[in-house]
Amino acid sequence: MSEHTDERIESEAQLVEQFLLPLTNGDAGTLALRDDCAVLSPPPGMDLLLTTDSLVEGVHFLPGDVPSFKALAVNVSDLVAKGAQPFGYLLTLAFPSLPTRRMMTKLTAGLAAAQSVFGCHLLGGDTDLTGGLLTITIAAIGVVPAGRTVRRAGAKPGDVVYVSGAIGDATLGLALRKDPSLRGGYDLDRASTQALLARFETPRPPVALAPVLRQYASAALDVSDGLAKDFLTLCRVSEVGGEIELDRVPVSAAAGRALASGRASIGQLVAGGEDYEVLATVPQAQASAFEGAARAAGVTVTAIGRIADERNIRFLDAEGNAVRLSSTGWEHL
Amino acid sequence: MSEHTDERIESEAQLVEQFLLPLTNGDAGTLALRDDCAVLSPPPGMDLLLTTDSLVEGVHFLPGDVPSFKALAVNVSDLVAKGAQPFGYLLTLAFPSLPTRRMMTKLTAGLAAAQSVFGCHLLGGDTDLTGGLLTITIAAIGVVPAGRTVRRAGAKPGDVVYVSGAIGDATLGLALRKDPSLRGGYDLDRASTQALLARFETPRPPVALAPVLRQYASAALDVSDGLAKDFLTLCRVSEVGGEIELDRVPVSAAAGRALASGRASIGQLVAGGEDYEVLATVPQAQASAFEGAARAAGVTVTAIGRIADERNIRFLDAEGNAVRLSSTGWEHL
Repeated sequence: MSEHTDERIESEAQLVEQFLLPLTNGDAGTLALRDDCAVLSPPPGMDLLLTTDSLVEGVHFLPGDVPSFKALAVNVSDLVAKGAQPFGYLLTLAFPSLPTRRMMTKLTAGLAAAQSVFGCHLLGGDTDLTGGLLTITIAAIGVVPAGRTVRRAGAKPGDVVYVSGAIGDATLGLALRKDPSLRGGYDLDRASTQALLARFETPRPPVALAPVLRQYASAALDVSDGLAKDFLTLCRVSEVGGEIELDRVPVSAAAGRALASGRASIGQLVAGGEDYEVLATVPQAQASAFEGAARAAGVTVTAIGRIADERNIRFLDAEGNAVRLSSTGWEHL
Repeated sequence: MSEHTDERIESEAQLVEQFLLPLTNGDAGTLALRDDCAVLSPPPGMDLLLTTDSLVEGVHFLPGDVPSFKALAVNVSDLVAKGAQPFGYLLTLAFPSLPTRRMMTKLTAGLAAAQSVFGCHLLGGDTDLTGGLLTITIAAIGVVPAGRTVRRAGAKPGDVVYVSGAIGDATLGLALRKDPSLRGGYDLDRASTQALLARFETPRPPVALAPVLRQYASAALDVSDGLAKDFLTLCRVSEVGGEIELDRVPVSAAAGRALASGRASIGQLVAGGEDYEVLATVPQAQASAFEGAARAAGVTVTAIGRIADERNIRFLDAEGNAVRLSSTGWEHL
């Protein structure tokens, strides 16, 4: 890191050479970021998956944050849910004004960490000084064996509904970011608080689950809009109905404390978004094989419901009664 | 077109279904824009080229404009200069607020026209309401036979410097947009004025030149920052010098009138940008074959200079004297 971190970057050329070039990991196809294009030689027998997502200051992140790790993570999440291995990404940065070295160091450190976790690298991009909102746009590319992409459509009656990891941490993390005093109400110790904040700031889509999804999932999508809404989306696109048992939705130890405090509810956690876990459906006959393969890949998956024939979509409480979800909880129908 | 063009779009779903889905040209790989990803099955033996460029309101276009044709054109321009055929693109739209039907109709009409001209289609994307500046970001994908990408580096001493089409129209078009009264000073009739405005608003990178570049060019880049600056870039990256004869730089009939009026100068035209033509270098021995192949492809190319051994870069007037370029013209050294 420079000794003069508050210095502004001098030029786009400096920004590219000093900060962005190291993120290419020496891939010759990036042409050392000197050309306007990156060259990709697709591996034979593989399809490429393309996705793009922007994070805009004040819309997707709190002013002052530099959520570069998350910007890559949300794109990787789309790829993983499709059964793809992340390969690389194009980065478009819109800065209000020339950034400081401190800010660029933070931005590239986040990307470098995310690249390392997700196994991909920078291919190229574009930077602009706009006078507008800080915006980080990523177009990510993943690879999947030809014809093996997992889609949102494909869930069938009788399929088991699974979710990876734990749900609700990011919602609680965001709440804690906005109002740190909630820590007391949620009855959280320091470690639990940090864990929830980390899940909001540096989400970890389960890359290792991608090949398992390809093998077993009839449909999948990433949990970004909230488990409840994403389940509705999956059912709508697959033209099926189904039910989720709320007391089977997996939560972390930290979220469990918040629930036990009575200040957070499972309805709130499944309505909140940004989990960047995978919601998948698996034929009943493959369910235990799927669970075993996920375990072998080091990813926790939990059966939380079932796809049904009728188009009705229901969320059930511990007694099996249908409830109506709202953003703050749920009520009996 | 709807009868109620001033109505606001109701939702992102409506925007996607009614306005964006038709731009996919029915490509099954787009998954009907229902998933977060597009699937691309790369043609065997081809490399993929990736590029991305944003157009931001107030930075790259005048407030009130909806430069969707241009947003695709500037990306296609990057691909063409690399010898690639445009294939498809991801579209990221940041809207200040929910757009009207009129605005979306304009935006998609521009994209549809550009797709048709350039031979590519929409693959996927992302839309956001940001409260910020209207921003159109495109990540475009082109295909090129494996290993045949034309780079910026590669110009050799003795190579002939070529430029496609005509230079300076977009600069004059922008000047006319900002100050319509310049039309009189430039001595332009209505048709010439329209021609210059069109070159600024709907640039046409020469897609048909791509295979010719692959066969003959030692180096190439698109003319976006101004012919003079882009020539400096090409020489710097290729680690050579060279010279351009300003009186050989091709201009349109309309730009010729502006030059003849004495109110515009060739220095201004080569300093201005956004031509989205191709600047290429070709070995002397291949020069006439290159010219013939370009002619056969229906693209005008003009020899305007030569690459030299020494790192010196010169711009020459009609008498062969070196001149210093400025944004408003040039002066003798």
